[in-house]
Amino acid sequence: RTVIVNFSSYFLQGILERLDAGEIVIGDGGFVFALEKRGYVKAGPWTPEAAVEHPEAVRQLHREFLRAGSNVLQTFTFYASEDKLENRGNYVAEKLTCQKVNEAACDIAREVANEGDALVAGGVSQTPSYLSCKDKAEVKTAFRKQLDVFVKKNVDFLIAEYFEHVEEAVWAVEVLKESGKPVAATMCIGPEGDMHGVPPGQCAVQLVKAGASIIGVNCHFDPDMCLETVKLMKEGLQAAKLKAHLMCQPLAFHTPDCGKQGFIDLPEFPFGLEPRILTRWDIQKYARKAYDLGIRFIGGCCGFEPYHIRAIAEELGPERGFLPEGSEKHGNWGSGLSMHTKPWVRARARKEYWENLKPASGRPYCPSMSKPDGWGVTKGARELMQQKEATSEQQLKELFQKQKF
Amino acid sequence: RTVIVNFSSYFLQGILERLDAGEIVIGDGGFVFALEKRGYVKAGPWTPEAAVEHPEAVRQLHREFLRAGSNVLQTFTFYASEDKLENRGNYVAEKLTCQKVNEAACDIAREVANEGDALVAGGVSQTPSYLSCKDKAEVKTAFRKQLDVFVKKNVDFLIAEYFEHVEEAVWAVEVLKESGKPVAATMCIGPEGDMHGVPPGQCAVQLVKAGASIIGVNCHFDPDMCLETVKLMKEGLQAAKLKAHLMCQPLAFHTPDCGKQGFIDLPEFPFGLEPRILTRWDIQKYARKAYDLGIRFIGGCCGFEPYHIRAIAEELGPERGFLPEGSEKHGNWGSGLSMHTKPWVRARARKEYWENLKPASGRPYCPSMSKPDGWGVTKGARELMQQKEATSEQQLKELFQKQKF
Amino acid sequence: RTVIVNFSSYFLQGILERLDAGEIVIGDGGFVFALEKRGYVKAGPWTPEAAVEHPEAVRQLHREFLRAGSNVLQTFTFYASEDKLENRGNYVAEKLTCQKVNEAACDIAREVANEGDALVAGGVSQTPSYLSCKDKAEVKTAFRKQLDVFVKKNVDFLIAEYFEHVEEAVWAVEVLKESGKPVAATMCIGPEGDMHGVPPGQCAVQLVKAGASIIGVNCHFDPDMCLETVKLMKEGLQAAKLKAHLMCQPLAFHTPDCGKQGFIDLPEFPFGLEPRILTRWDIQKYARKAYDLGIRFIGGCCGFEPYHIRAIAEELGPERGFLPEGSEKHGNWGSGLSMHTKPWVRARARKEYWENLKPASGRPYCPSMSKPDGWGVTKGARELMQQKEATSEQQLKELFQKQKF
Amino acid sequence: RTVIVNFSSYFLQGILERLDAGEIVIGDGGFVFALEKRGYVKAGPWTPEAAVEHPEAVRQLHREFLRAGSNVLQTFTFYASEDKLENRGNYVAEKLTCQKVNEAACDIAREVANEGDALVAGGVSQTPSYLSCKDKAEVKTAFRKQLDVFVKKNVDFLIAEYFEHVEEAVWAVEVLKESGKPVAATMCIGPEGDMHGVPPGQCAVQLVKAGASIIGVNCHFDPDMCLETVKLMKEGLQAAKLKAHLMCQPLAFHTPDCGKQGFIDLPEFPFGLEPRILTRWDIQKYARKAYDLGIRFIGGCCGFEPYHIRAIAEELGPERGFLPEGSEKHGNWGSGLSMHTKPWVRARARKEYWENLKPASGRPYCPSMSKPDGWGVTKGARELMQQKEATSEQQLKELFQKQKF
Repeated sequence: RTVIVNFSSYFLQGILERLDAGEIVIGDGGFVFALEKRGYVKAGPWTPEAAVEHPEAVRQLHREFLRAGSNVLQTFTFYASEDKLENRGNYVAEKLTCQKVNEAACDIAREVANEGDALVAGGVSQTPSYLSCKDKAEVKTAFRKQLDVFVKKNVDFLIAEYFEHVEEAVWAVEVLKESGKPVAATMCIGPEGDMHGVPPGQCAVQLVKAGASIIGVNCHFDPDMCLETVKLMKEGLQAAKLKAHLMCQPLAFHTPDCGKQGFIDLPEFPFGLEPRILTRWDIQKYARKAYDLGIRFIGGCCGFEPYHIRAIAEELGPERGFLPEGSEKHGNWGSGLSMHTKPWVRARARKEYWENLKPASGRPYCPSMSKPDGWGVTKGARELMQQKEATSEQQLKELFQKQKF
Repeated sequence: RTVIVNFSSYFLQGILERLDAGEIVIGDGGFVFALEKRGYVKAGPWTPEAAVEHPEAVRQLHREFLRAGSNVLQTFTFYASEDKLENRGNYVAEKLTCQKVNEAACDIAREVANEGDALVAGGVSQTPSYLSCKDKAEVKTAFRKQLDVFVKKNVDFLIAEYFEHVEEAVWAVEVLKESGKPVAATMCIGPEGDMHGVPPGQCAVQLVKAGASIIGVNCHFDPDMCLETVKLMKEGLQAAKLKAHLMCQPLAFHTPDCGKQGFIDLPEFPFGLEPRILTRWDIQKYARKAYDLGIRFIGGCCGFEPYHIRAIAEELGPERGFLPEGSEKHGNWGSGLSMHTKPWVRARARKEYWENLKPASGRPYCPSMSKPDGWGVTKGARELMQQKEATSEQQLKELFQKQKF
Repeated sequence: RTVIVNFSSYFLQGILERLDAGEIVIGDGGFVFALEKRGYVKAGPWTPEAAVEHPEAVRQLHREFLRAGSNVLQTFTFYASEDKLENRGNYVAEKLTCQKVNEAACDIAREVANEGDALVAGGVSQTPSYLSCKDKAEVKTAFRKQLDVFVKKNVDFLIAEYFEHVEEAVWAVEVLKESGKPVAATMCIGPEGDMHGVPPGQCAVQLVKAGASIIGVNCHFDPDMCLETVKLMKEGLQAAKLKAHLMCQPLAFHTPDCGKQGFIDLPEFPFGLEPRILTRWDIQKYARKAYDLGIRFIGGCCGFEPYHIRAIAEELGPERGFLPEGSEKHGNWGSGLSMHTKPWVRARARKEYWENLKPASGRPYCPSMSKPDGWGVTKGARELMQQKEATSEQQLKELFQKQKF
Repeated sequence: RTVIVNFSSYFLQGILERLDAGEIVIGDGGFVFALEKRGYVKAGPWTPEAAVEHPEAVRQLHREFLRAGSNVLQTFTFYASEDKLENRGNYVAEKLTCQKVNEAACDIAREVANEGDALVAGGVSQTPSYLSCKDKAEVKTAFRKQLDVFVKKNVDFLIAEYFEHVEEAVWAVEVLKESGKPVAATMCIGPEGDMHGVPPGQCAVQLVKAGASIIGVNCHFDPDMCLETVKLMKEGLQAAKLKAHLMCQPLAFHTPDCGKQGFIDLPEFPFGLEPRILTRWDIQKYARKAYDLGIRFIGGCCGFEPYHIRAIAEELGPERGFLPEGSEKHGNWGSGLSMHTKPWVRARARKEYWENLKPASGRPYCPSMSKPDGWGVTKGARELMQQKEATSEQQLKELFQKQKF
């Protein structure tokens, strides 16, 4: 029988020491989606001012991920660059400067991490400045402002995540490296590569050359597509005789039908994704495949709730030798059902049952797949975005459509 | 434009005063399912010891429902009768007596309710004692032990909920009435009626005659089926020239394919229900239909997350004249998307889009409906359960199967 | 091993002698749908002028049903009443009088029936005259004109089929009885009853009282719904202490989602029904259920191709003691696949495989069920149809919509 | 308004003259599947002895395709090589020699072709001899025996079709070229290429070099996948600076989920494919896409019924300037429905309705896609087949499975 151990003395080392030693590191789940459902983040801007406005809600979600088995708590600083927050001015009270939000997020993450000795990772993500074609110096300045906070608050390592263009991701890594802390870099791309058409293998090579010690993907695609992308990254590194740790933080939504830009273009994004949510058993399959592919930093992104993270920890329990604290409220493969009042539900308390279940949607009037409705944003997208201010929405749409093959 | 008002002075009155005045009262969502996903409740036993073990998690969920618009906070005392907690002994530490759990749950609910002036409702639900055929006196004693706590903690009113047999529900109402507080009673039945075959209309009549001021259904079925059941209850009362307020707290799972016992018998229960989760737009349709049917106590049960409750409050915002606090982080019908970076996502910021979306499951290898696999528990179920100790699982299954017509 | 016998001496007797003796009589399939796909019938008018224009095509289809096991060949005279053919004037050459078409259809059916000693049944169906509210005498005159042909051509018995209103069906039976030949009567209704709201049990009683020896349903609904309706008819007869043989000729399309008027109102009717077509294994299940319900005249209607009729004959082969001629080209439960070149296809040559297969649609962008789009034709439909000439299409639609509850 | 013209004087020229002149040539549909459903072909062996046993059934199907618009009638000689017919000995009476069957098939095709001046094409397909690794000389001898009949019966041109290996297809083309008649060659491959891994572009080059004037694909895949394959073939020819006419004869089943070997490996093959059948509107889309891709020989294979061929002719009516005879019984885009009795069905008599319909399956318990269950037959398949006699079914399965990557 698997034992739940007190793992408080487990994390004596930094992220690289652990990965170098072959340990499995479990990431956390998606904050913006989880907190949107809890009422603290607004879909559309997706900004993290809740760290200041409702710290108890952010703290509780961190705690739940920690309890579920997360070894890394990411500061809730998604899209918290100054340019982004300014863009969203009317949602963020005047005094909520970029700095305040980032600092509060760091404090909360550290407070909870200490409850369980997890590592704190400071994160930066793609900027409006890049998309509106500001130059390298300006974009780097935006990253540096966030970095200053992370250094001041002494996070354990840094993650450049959610980049659609490897060029910007490389700039981010270069800035983050200035801190001397370990840097991870994940892009929100699929097997077709970044928005400029750079394939995953080349993205990986550029990120490692820029200084990233851990590379991979996050967000935008489901586990299967993310693992396919990381596989291509791994192969790119091997061909270039480069080494890096691999990391994967996919969506907890099934997206077999999405296009190059991922779930954003699916008609269900972001308020109709419920039928696509992964079950805990889907997650266990993901965790196993990720492990088999050699990935050792395994977490989640949008859609991942605490019980999804727990499923990673439970699937890899045998390899790790322990279960997360949260497993006290969860039996292996549904074994807790053996206490259910109905005998036919008790009969479901076994692996074979859940492993083979093909869950029905209860939605007979809905299809199983959708056609993405993005406007074909491909190579020239960035140039088009430049013309944004100058053109009406309709003109912009036409410009995008001309991009289509 | 709808204004978010400070409603702190709104609730000056008790539940019956409000309903009598024609106000809409919004209930809260499902605690056991939400807390199971957050890591604090074990599926199978489904007991609420987290009120003592992890009060911060229970408190946070209460807060989220309050913020989403709940006017009633139910104490997290589901299945907290002494006999139930004793059955689940190995999960509940010795000192977690029934009384302690119930008291803690009351304290937390009251603390949060005061943050927004919501009402606190103490709840009792069906007992193992009844299912194992203990007599009326014994079953009533179980209810009375919980009631003692609710009286001591001075909850605002009482709810007898989640009853499959109207006989036991009537006993519960009779006990709760002893307190002098208003009593609501909801059964987890569908249009086919209770497990002894009593149709919804007759159930309603019996509950009102026993003293319930508010009657309706909760759990086990999706909104459409629950509303159909409440409609039958309403007609039953009309035929009997009785009056009561109507209440509905359905699942947030689509269950068009379930049988008489509801979602318990669906093969996806409880760990594969994800594809069935209702979107916020599904909820808005439910809220509108419930209102049109004359129901004024509108809430949810298992599967209802805070954003689902918010959807009720937003749909009925025009009737109520205000929006919940949580709407500061939510635009009407997705209007927040007008700030999204991608123009084709901005184009989704409108009612027509979400109202007509048929969301895909992303699961092309799964069907849309399932066959329930219950063993045909109908009329004689209670008698069969009596033989439980005396028979093996296999014998029990055979006994159940013989029940099938 | 089941033997294919020469059954040429099997049918020495009329339809009632056979049914009275407890024999199973297998009907044929749907002519208008099959011949539409073969290019000889026009969807919309659905008239049978092909009997004169392309007799070889009609003859071949009769032969295929005979070979598949049909014991009854229905004359291809669907909608061949004079008023109907006149309505469709521009499709039917001047000289194609009602009489010519009906006579040709009789000759072809008899010619093929003699090739295998099958019985010939002359059929009449509902008339435009009734729908446009002509009186009883006028409607009966239309039936009588067809009957004159059937008597002249000496068909073996008569079927009044495809009636939506029991009133008109009774009139048809009354006319057909004038011939002295046995009369069967089937309505195209579901469990909800006829278009005037008469429930199936009462329809059955009226038809038997009018003189029908065989009663049941045909068309409009899938096997499951048709069998449910026949069951209600059977119960109605039992309650009235009347006796009649039961008959069922359903669609070969799955229609779980249709409304009171059946597949006509499904958005897929009539050119998008392909994904709903029943497999031969679905038909075998239907045949078995029909038999178990006591139905002994078992056939099909629209969508039934020769291989569907063969499936009935094969399923009931053990009861009948022989297989149809067409089974020489068909193995029991796919056993012919044992000669396939691929070993994994050979592995499908068994009952368990096909019985349990849940066939995929290959259409991930399509739903599994549709909302019927009829305009709520219920009780008052006939009155509204009366106003048809006087009103525009739009007015008519509005009139229908007002009918909705 | 489009006029149906008498096209009897249209076909004055041979297949190449017509294609060279830029005309659209419409092929016919699938005989083995259509005649299996009509009761004259046995699934599994799929041999064409019906040409001798039931000539009237074969003749009628030819006529229906002719009437639907086919300009080419293929002799019903699928799998009619001597080695194949011998393999199926117990199904084919002694006297049904290969020669007799092939001769009868030629006579019937010619008889019907003359009724409308269509061309007759003699066809050969892959042989058991090749699959069991007989040498080139032996395989060629099998083709030559069939060719002798085609020459004697003076067919208009020849088609080598349904080849999984380009090597064998080239041998077939070489033999057929000996006759001096035009030769078409189509393989049953998808975008991944032939069973030895030769990509479509290379297959095309080899076939043209061997002497084929028309090349393309038939069977095994749905229109979308077939068109993708022909596109690759076209590109292969362009790269090699070779010229040939393009031809496409796909399945009338949706197969987005099949593997390299096509629909054979889908679990629904061959008796559960109904939900996958293409509608006439699906076919019209196929015809338009094929035309736009530059394909001028457009027909169908398994699953294509006469109404599917008619849909090709109707879609390309504007380009061709006439409609097929069969269109007298079919209105453009459902226009015949304007004569339907129900007004809401009349409202479906328009292109937009059918073009946009997403037809439901009526099968809520079935998924939309299947996992193919082939045993991974890839490169080494031919070698394994050699060992067939020497090994048991189980050993063979294991051998196949080892092939899997």
